[in-house]
Amino acid sequence: MANSPSGETVTERIVRVLETFDTDRTVQTASEIGRRAHLPSSTAHRVVAELVSCGLLERDEEHRVRLGMRLWELALRGSRALRLRQAALPFMERVQARIREHTQLAVLENGETLFVERLSHPQAGANITRIAGRLPLHASSAGLVLLAHGPRELQEQVLTGPLDAVSPETETDPARLRRVLASVRRDGVVVAPGTVESVSTGVAVPVREGRGPVVAALSVVLPRDAPTRPAVDELRAAATGISAALEAQRP
Amino acid sequence: MANSPSGETVTERIVRVLETFDTDRTVQTASEIGRRAHLPSSTAHRVVAELVSCGLLERDEEHRVRLGMRLWELALRGSRALRLRQAALPFMERVQARIREHTQLAVLENGETLFVERLSHPQAGANITRIAGRLPLHASSAGLVLLAHGPRELQEQVLTGPLDAVSPETETDPARLRRVLASVRRDGVVVAPGTVESVSTGVAVPVREGRGPVVAALSVVLPRDAPTRPAVDELRAAATGISAALEAQRP
Repeated sequence: MANSPSGETVTERIVRVLETFDTDRTVQTASEIGRRAHLPSSTAHRVVAELVSCGLLERDEEHRVRLGMRLWELALRGSRALRLRQAALPFMERVQARIREHTQLAVLENGETLFVERLSHPQAGANITRIAGRLPLHASSAGLVLLAHGPRELQEQVLTGPLDAVSPETETDPARLRRVLASVRRDGVVVAPGTVESVSTGVAVPVREGRGPVVAALSVVLPRDAPTRPAVDELRAAATGISAALEAQRP
Repeated sequence: MANSPSGETVTERIVRVLETFDTDRTVQTASEIGRRAHLPSSTAHRVVAELVSCGLLERDEEHRVRLGMRLWELALRGSRALRLRQAALPFMERVQARIREHTQLAVLENGETLFVERLSHPQAGANITRIAGRLPLHASSAGLVLLAHGPRELQEQVLTGPLDAVSPETETDPARLRRVLASVRRDGVVVAPGTVESVSTGVAVPVREGRGPVVAALSVVLPRDAPTRPAVDELRAAATGISAALEAQRP
């Protein structure tokens, strides 16, 4: 429907426009959007004007645009992410209160780790992940949990594809990564020192929907040499609680 | 661009499709979406197929569709709502830990109160608001704060328009409402018993960006006859903290 001369649909162009926004770039001009989305300037201005008129984008006093609250509202109110984080939040708060480090909830999304919630203690250490941010599956404790419990084809695809290092200690050897995934399935936990950043250790456990499939990974980011046992215990207790909460609120 | 025979743009149709999803209706068939969006079935199927191919919607095993994680990600990562809640969350957690009732953050959005964050104590009382849910401005403590500090024209529009009651005690008299708004500006707080539900009392304070304009309202929902003083003190302290945090993270 409504394809452009390039064969791209209007929907695809809208997505390309929305993709130009991120945490570090929340306000842009239509021309900047056009450049970043590789759209002709006139097309960018037209798409932006339409998105503004529907409230998906908003203009500020200087005629620059930002993501609209209406977009946020539409994306959130019926979403799986909201349902998941509502079930998880009370348990995440308890983990964070006791461990006092970053506590995160992540899901598998299109072959990557997508972080849907993060609580950060004011005194917590370094952490590069962000809400609505992504990391490759093999490159964080949460991702290793999601990959270990993900579809078999996805595992093979990751194991045979290029395994880029996010830090010098990211596991990039397919044979060793395969053994890590097996141990995650066996032990129900992964402790991954230095995988994302050399100063920290990620600890993650799977979160199931009731007794069903793994739907998320719950993780904490500890300083590199902190004891991991208290975190493992807290994460396991929290994951059990979230599973029960998800089961209880099943539609 | 790409208008339908009805003169509606593709963007408008996409919004109408997304609008059919909400907290109680997270999974639908394309035909159900068409009925609810008042779109011809063939149009609904085509729009849904395009949104699925871009990841904004996802299909489940039974070919029903739900909002996609990709939509959530695009809407969130560059959004004002995320920035606001990240600044507010640590302070909201403290309010909630001490008051042990629903703690909420709301913004003014297109003439209504839009709730962007809510923490709920497991033992907290009744509360009809939801994250990404809306209420009329005159009908909740948070809305009264946003209206009192909103644009003058908006105030006049609300005061001269129909003032619908959400509960039997919602203030619907324009003269009395005008006095409430003046007192909110004078006192920097509103205590609104029974405005949303007769069993509860809303307490709300304004949240400024640094020393600039009011950008949000922070509120708690107490049982009707609970003392309000501790909540007022906690909310004021939290609002001051959030203002400073917003100022510090200004782009």
